[in-house]
Amino acid sequence: MCRRAALCVVFFLTFGSGDCCLALSPRVYRENIQSWLDKQFKATGHSNAYFPQLIPYSFIAKEAAHVEGFAPELALVTRGGGKELEEPLVVRPTSETVVNHMFAQWVQSYRDLPILVNQWANVHRWEMRTRPFIRTLEFLWQEGHTAHATAQEAEAEAQQMIRLYERFATEVAAIPVVAGRKSKAESFAGADITYTIEAMMGDGKALQAGTSHNLGQNFARAFDILFTDEDGERRHVWQTSWGVSTRMVGGVIMAHGDDTGLRLPPALAPTQLVVVPIWKTDDEKPGVMAAAQGIADAAGSAGIRVFVDAREGRTPGWKYNHWEMKGVPLRCEVGPRDVASGTCVLARRDIPGKAGKTMGVPLEATQLVTRLRTALDEVQAALLAQAIAFRDAHIVDITSYEQLQQVVDSGRWARGPWAGSGADEARVKTETGATFRCYPFDQPKTATGMACFMTGQPATEVAIFAKAY
Amino acid sequence: MCRRAALCVVFFLTFGSGDCCLALSPRVYRENIQSWLDKQFKATGHSNAYFPQLIPYSFIAKEAAHVEGFAPELALVTRGGGKELEEPLVVRPTSETVVNHMFAQWVQSYRDLPILVNQWANVHRWEMRTRPFIRTLEFLWQEGHTAHATAQEAEAEAQQMIRLYERFATEVAAIPVVAGRKSKAESFAGADITYTIEAMMGDGKALQAGTSHNLGQNFARAFDILFTDEDGERRHVWQTSWGVSTRMVGGVIMAHGDDTGLRLPPALAPTQLVVVPIWKTDDEKPGVMAAAQGIADAAGSAGIRVFVDAREGRTPGWKYNHWEMKGVPLRCEVGPRDVASGTCVLARRDIPGKAGKTMGVPLEATQLVTRLRTALDEVQAALLAQAIAFRDAHIVDITSYEQLQQVVDSGRWARGPWAGSGADEARVKTETGATFRCYPFDQPKTATGMACFMTGQPATEVAIFAKAY
Repeated sequence: MCRRAALCVVFFLTFGSGDCCLALSPRVYRENIQSWLDKQFKATGHSNAYFPQLIPYSFIAKEAAHVEGFAPELALVTRGGGKELEEPLVVRPTSETVVNHMFAQWVQSYRDLPILVNQWANVHRWEMRTRPFIRTLEFLWQEGHTAHATAQEAEAEAQQMIRLYERFATEVAAIPVVAGRKSKAESFAGADITYTIEAMMGDGKALQAGTSHNLGQNFARAFDILFTDEDGERRHVWQTSWGVSTRMVGGVIMAHGDDTGLRLPPALAPTQLVVVPIWKTDDEKPGVMAAAQGIADAAGSAGIRVFVDAREGRTPGWKYNHWEMKGVPLRCEVGPRDVASGTCVLARRDIPGKAGKTMGVPLEATQLVTRLRTALDEVQAALLAQAIAFRDAHIVDITSYEQLQQVVDSGRWARGPWAGSGADEARVKTETGATFRCYPFDQPKTATGMACFMTGQPATEVAIFAKAY
Repeated sequence: MCRRAALCVVFFLTFGSGDCCLALSPRVYRENIQSWLDKQFKATGHSNAYFPQLIPYSFIAKEAAHVEGFAPELALVTRGGGKELEEPLVVRPTSETVVNHMFAQWVQSYRDLPILVNQWANVHRWEMRTRPFIRTLEFLWQEGHTAHATAQEAEAEAQQMIRLYERFATEVAAIPVVAGRKSKAESFAGADITYTIEAMMGDGKALQAGTSHNLGQNFARAFDILFTDEDGERRHVWQTSWGVSTRMVGGVIMAHGDDTGLRLPPALAPTQLVVVPIWKTDDEKPGVMAAAQGIADAAGSAGIRVFVDAREGRTPGWKYNHWEMKGVPLRCEVGPRDVASGTCVLARRDIPGKAGKTMGVPLEATQLVTRLRTALDEVQAALLAQAIAFRDAHIVDITSYEQLQQVVDSGRWARGPWAGSGADEARVKTETGATFRCYPFDQPKTATGMACFMTGQPATEVAIFAKAY
């Protein structure tokens, strides 16, 4: 069991096959997601740091809600260097405790604040049920940790980061997430407020794709993180933490994939363009190969991530299917007749069959690159537009609990006025299988006179409920 | 004890202080070392992958030499999700076993070869004695793993990668390492041949700064990695693995540091230029600050990593010391008189005091950037030249064991003809404290007639012995 759990990560995180061994998830996450986010984190004043992965159990136990939330899913190191340890070490499920142990030593005065750090790391959560990409025993993520002198600053930071994630999801992953606030019951263990981005998958289920927490002073009290303010008074800091993981890759797969396989947004695709040279006779090969390489050189020089699939023993049709399955956004086909006419055929992954093909695209580098760039932009925009249309067609405004049941049973999201308790939330979950996703930031303009769809009590906000991964 | 061991990582990997919390080692490693190496790995055909960190104990036990080498330093997860595990999971000390478990499933035919993957990851080794940067319980590294159809290809790969590490050390880290081959006793547990780059620290001690292993067919046999060759025969693959870790950052610190603190080679420095604005009166401040920001903008636009230290309440002298301690290669000082004359003062970290200062450097962007770029190149070259001179002055050719003892006692490296056994190596270590470092690739042109400095037996190679970290 434990072996299966551990290995399910690699089976699904890697995208290995006979011909190549690309680890899709780490590649997409580490190379494309990471580079975009890391740049933005720095632009907003954050520095990268790294904290120990093995955390003394007593640290985890310091914040009451935190330990309660995480204790059931911990992996524990109890032996090291051939000896039984006096105190078990926790394989980090998240790093608030060890980070705050350090913050307590780094923070003395208001001059030391804010502290704005981020860590790219692996974490482990011993889930009862794992699911490829979405819920794995080990996953890669980034976790931001900040400490501030005032509650206002911490709140602004928590909101800034969820808005950054929203931008990433929309602009880069082409997933039009709904950003909002979690209910108390669905908040992070140890947080005052949890913000979330909720993504709609192709089957209508919701996926929590990123969170940002206003931790208030909970960890500051547990870890004695005190600073002397400008008036000489000792105060606890205010904190946030926020993270996006490899789960985002699962979101991309399930939001955009179709029956033929993946459809990767160009901004995230490790390979944006595959070139398939086509020849039958040995006479044809040199000219076709030269043209294919010419396409690759032109695209590569323009910063387009390109791969020439010149393998022998595979038909062009086999290669088309292969790269469609892998979600590569664009394909160039070039054969002897194309070479003769100085052109190639350009095919878009997001439009199946002939409709997605453009014949007679010039091989001349400048014209070709312009066409490729335009096509990449078009694919990116088309995936987003499709996802927006799908999302909007699958969110239904409701005013009664009966409606909620119908809506979630039909694979859609239910949005309605909500003033229920944690117990009411639990009842929705038990009876319908749907969970509270968020109070969207985007609320109806007139919130007066709303009645909770379940309890009938006056409600000031609408909330979204949906079945979720 | 375990807590101290775990935390020593963060105490020394992070470079935290009251004013900022830069994690030096992860920043230098992940941002500058990683970006250079990753580019080169890809240029040589490797893809990034990620494998599970927790490895079933039975995997580790499959290769006899491997388990013998690593068993004493393992951290073991014995509890997960609240339950005792049937089989302990090893927190990876290195990933050969889990990688090869996967390779066995990926490889069928010669068409699947070579497999060339690299993983950026954290690893744990339960060392008896830890040492900041150099020997920590947890460290970050990259580990390459490859499988090939022939012994020749694997050998070429192992040599290619150690040469790449040698280039990195010399060209980027400004450490003129000695590349060579380890003795059997000093080779990696499970390897046929281990290649190494040996770096000389400022105290004359050696540091193994990177290794590349020809694993032969040892793991292929243990993990049944078989392929069908072009003649239809089933054969075991030939393999390599290779890695460089955050230890390299320790090497940079100890190779280049002086009494004032760090001296970072510009190619690796997270901040290459610090700008210190100097003003006394409120009247002076705006002009000085504008000039400082102008320097930063010009430098930043030119791709130079720059920081303006505009903190109030710290004297310029305090700031100079602070940034010298942190090893920033260049400093611009700008005060009211500089602003009036349209110039600034440029100071080099590697040349102490007035000798390292250039007055009257123009503030005009184009001229300034040219001067900054030249100065960065000069610092990079000067650090390398100093390290080469130091290294060459501290390697002594010997012909007798008595000489070896004298040489290593004086903090230098001894190089001489060697034909000793593993037992002879152990004797050198016990009696002198020096260890076998490598048979350098760079051997004397005429190797005829050499006699082992210890046994007097005919020797075909010279070897280096030194005290080491």
